[in-house]
Amino acid sequence: MKLKSFEHFNCSLAQTLSVIGEHWTLLIVRDAFFGLRRFDQFQKSLGIARNVLSDRLKKLVQAGVLDKSEGPGHPEYRLTEKGLALQPILIAMTQWGDTYLPSPTGRRLTFVDRRDGKAIRPVGVQAADGRSLRPREIRARPGPGLRHKGQFDRSVPLEAIERGGGGSGDVR
Amino acid sequence: MKLKSFEHFNCSLAQTLSVIGEHWTLLIVRDAFFGLRRFDQFQKSLGIARNVLSDRLKKLVQAGVLDKSEGPGHPEYRLTEKGLALQPILIAMTQWGDTYLPSPTGRRLTFVDRRDGKAIRPVGVQAADGRSLRPREIRARPGPGLRHKGQFDRSVPLEAIERGGGGSGDVR
Repeated sequence: MKLKSFEHFNCSLAQTLSVIGEHWTLLIVRDAFFGLRRFDQFQKSLGIARNVLSDRLKKLVQAGVLDKSEGPGHPEYRLTEKGLALQPILIAMTQWGDTYLPSPTGRRLTFVDRRDGKAIRPVGVQAADGRSLRPREIRARPGPGLRHKGQFDRSVPLEAIERGGGGSGDVR
Repeated sequence: MKLKSFEHFNCSLAQTLSVIGEHWTLLIVRDAFFGLRRFDQFQKSLGIARNVLSDRLKKLVQAGVLDKSEGPGHPEYRLTEKGLALQPILIAMTQWGDTYLPSPTGRRLTFVDRRDGKAIRPVGVQAADGRSLRPREIRARPGPGLRHKGQFDRSVPLEAIERGGGGSGDVR
């Protein structure tokens, strides 16, 4: 399976997908969060073909998500700061799966605060003052990095963004 | 490109990936958030092959992420509650792309609170009392839905979860 490049899309989500938008890639990152470091550990955990794993690890290192140790012995792969910053995404995806695709025997994993052992909050969207925002309460505002429509036809559909009173500009 | 099934993985993240873990799928969901409804709108926005789009839309409807209208005229696809609940994931992915894969000409989109026009906060992980948690401050605790190792070799690596003082049980 060839990884598709979405780098021509002028969209930050598409940029992110160009790095992590592939099944195995996110599961490798998950395993790195769980402390796996070596090729054989990832391979055993995921049951993935060695050439596919090799390719995905290489891409993650190139993208700066994983750092590969270059010393003697087996190389180790560790999350960089950029990789660690994926955690809210992974936890939000895990919580969504817990809610909508649950295990019949109960919760699989609970993420807890190390300090007091209490479960973390569901990852959500908050206003500047901390209020929780629901999807319809959020609007997308185009910035200088967004190319004009016509100039770049495959960008985010501008006609859907902040037109007039916010009718179709709502992110809903 | 065949969509890989990760349903045999006993992991909520893998379950989520089985629904949305493919490039086009998440970009279709993004466009639905921006108000696109019809096949031709998605096709024009994404420049995607019609048979691929058709397949992905069908899968999203089957998964309960999109609802397909069955009236006269062109069918319309709308996000269900389950689909709307993907928003924190999409926004977190967009913010990660803004930070680590930015456009050279500035921010592409800013998500703002409809009420006051102020930018939303970065999506992050919070403790029960609202404190922001960094990756090393979070631990994963196995629940009843997690099968035992040995019984199911491809589950989340149990050896990495909450062993003793939290050393390798940290999600980091």
